[in-house]
Parts: sequence; structure tokens; C-alpha cells
Amino acid sequence: MGLSREKLMKAVSGQMPEKRWKHTLGVMEKSVQLAEKYGADPVKADLAAILHDVAKYWPVSEMEAVIRENGLNEELLLHDKQLWHSEVGAFVAQRDYGVDDPEIINAIRWHTSGRVGMSLLDKVICLADYIEPGRDFPGVDHIREQAERSLEEGLIAGFDSTISLLISQRRVIYPLTMLSRNDLIAHL
Amino acid sequence: MGLSREKLMKAVSGQMPEKRWKHTLGVMEKSVQLAEKYGADPVKADLAAILHDVAKYWPVSEMEAVIRENGLNEELLLHDKQLWHSEVGAFVAQRDYGVDDPEIINAIRWHTSGRVGMSLLDKVICLADYIEPGRDFPGVDHIREQAERSLEEGLIAGFDSTISLLISQRRVIYPLTMLSRNDLIAHL
Repeated sequence: MGLSREKLMKAVSGQMPEKRWKHTLGVMEKSVQLAEKYGADPVKADLAAILHDVAKYWPVSEMEAVIRENGLNEELLLHDKQLWHSEVGAFVAQRDYGVDDPEIINAIRWHTSGRVGMSLLDKVICLADYIEPGRDFPGVDHIREQAERSLEEGLIAGFDSTISLLISQRRVIYPLTMLSRNDLIAHL
Repeated sequence: MGLSREKLMKAVSGQMPEKRWKHTLGVMEKSVQLAEKYGADPVKADLAAILHDVAKYWPVSEMEAVIRENGLNEELLLHDKQLWHSEVGAFVAQRDYGVDDPEIINAIRWHTSGRVGMSLLDKVICLADYIEPGRDFPGVDHIREQAERSLEEGLIAGFDSTISLLISQRRVIYPLTMLSRNDLIAHL
């Protein structure tokens, strides 16, 4: 880590509208809570949360360039642009902010889709992103209730809500989202 | 084809309870209708429909043996047993009933999950299986309405209903079902 936490927060918040930064503050709060409840490292959770949406408001062309020019997962470019910022964010966290802990990098990388075999920190960040206090979408309270039972129950409810929303909107379901859900169910 | 249509029907109906044979008769009727409406071959649709559930009531151990001993898709054995009969049925149609038309064999093989790049006959059989006159499950009328618009709209509605049901039952979603749905949506 090159920057102090304060300077990092300033650098990240400058890359997004105020509303998204407020969301990030919510994810920081919730991910630290979840980390403490479920035995993950709260300091790592805090850092991953600060950075998880760093690239969310980057221009699409810039995200695409980072993916193409750095050998990242180009298959993402065939899918919804909403999925790109996680991959780009993980790369940027390393390159621009000196984060070299693979647990933190992975938690940023997989925070939107999940992955098969999610780590404890992956689960904390992904679930915190669904249920941070500022979130207010239909079904969020059910996810919050399930999150009280376990990280896995919370995430299953979260992924199920995403898949159901995509179905109702006639949109393509990102395969990894469904595979992550299946993997959590298979391991319960 | 070794057997006459009549003898084939007798051989197939002997392998399932009366209720399932009634379902098969419904799929035959509906698949011929869909074939005529959407330009598929009604004779092939009829034959694929007769055979589509031939292995549905085979003992699980027998289905497993056929899959293992004949180099079929063993990955299926990791998934819900409901998916095995399509693969086994396609094999049996060839081996025991002399069906050698790959269009018909494929329509049997993919009638439960669909596949990426479904053929016209695949679509006819898979959709007829969802909406044959005897089907009466929540949401079937919506699938029937969509089937009036196009094979693809009907199938999207069908796969969506399957995925939603599996979500509500906390069951694993077979990845190919979701990929088939995505593929149909991406091509509309």
C-alpha cells in the first residue's frame, strides 16, 4: 500500500459521483460488520470495499482499453458492461494503488458475479454490496434476513434476486452468476 | 427405421405408465402442430415426439449404465437425474429402434435442457414438451401464448419458468438450460 487510507479514500471518491461514494461508504460499513460476524479480516474487508467500485464510472472505452491492453478477461467484453468494472477495478487496485494482497484483489474482481469457490472475503464484499444500508430495491430485506443466517444464504438470496430480475427484464444472465449460485447451493 | 409407427408406439408405451404415454401423445399432437406452423418436418416431429421420453421411467441404475458403457455425456451424472433420460433416449432411439436421422436424435437428446444453437426440430420438440394439451402447471398459459408468437418466444418463456421454479425450490440450475435461454435471447 502506497497511500494512507485517507488519501486512498480521497483518490477513489474523486472517480465517482457523490451518490456512488455514499454507496461505497455503505459497503465499507457493512463489509466490516459481516467480516466481524463471520470471521473474515475486517481491515482487508475495509480496503476491498473502498476500492470495489473504483472503476464503476470510468468511460466504457477506457475500461475496454484496460481489459484489452493488459491481458485481462476479454470474454467479459461480450457481456453486460456492468460486469467490466470489477475486473478493471481489481487491476487498477494493484497498478495504481499498490494493493498486492491477492485476497483483496480477488474480492474486488469477483464482487459482481461471484465465482465458483468464493473465498470468505469474496463473500463478505459481494454480500455487503447487495445489502449495504443505502440499498433499497425490491427484495433487499429478504437478502438482509438471509445474511443474518449465513454469508452463503445471503448470497444465494442475492444471486437469485439478480437472476430473477434479469429474467423479468428479458436480459442475458451472466453464466458465472448462476454457477456461483449453484456452487453455494451444492455446498450447503 | 426397423419398426412400423404402430409397433414403435406400442414398444415405447410399454416402457412407461399410462399417464406418461398420454403426455407423449400430447407432445406428438403439439409438435406436429408446431412443425406445420413454423416450417419443420411434421413426420420427423412425430417420430421424435414418440421417442422423446422412451427412457423416462427406466431405473436410474440402467440409465447410468447406458451412459457409462456407451461413452455418452458422463457429466450429466453430476446433475439432476431428470436430465439423464434425454441422453439415454437419444441413444436408445438409435440402438434399439433404428432411428438414424441426426435431426431426430438431436431433438430427443436436447429436449429437456435445450442447447446453444438449437435446430428447428429441437425447438419444436422442446416447446411441445412444455405446452402439450395435458400440461397444467402455473405459468403454462403464458408459455402457450408466447408459443403463438414464435418458437423462440415460447422457449424463452418455458426456460424462464424452469429457472424460476428451480430458484423457488432452491435447486441447482442446469447450466445448459440457462445458456440455451441466453442464446435465444441474444439472437432475437
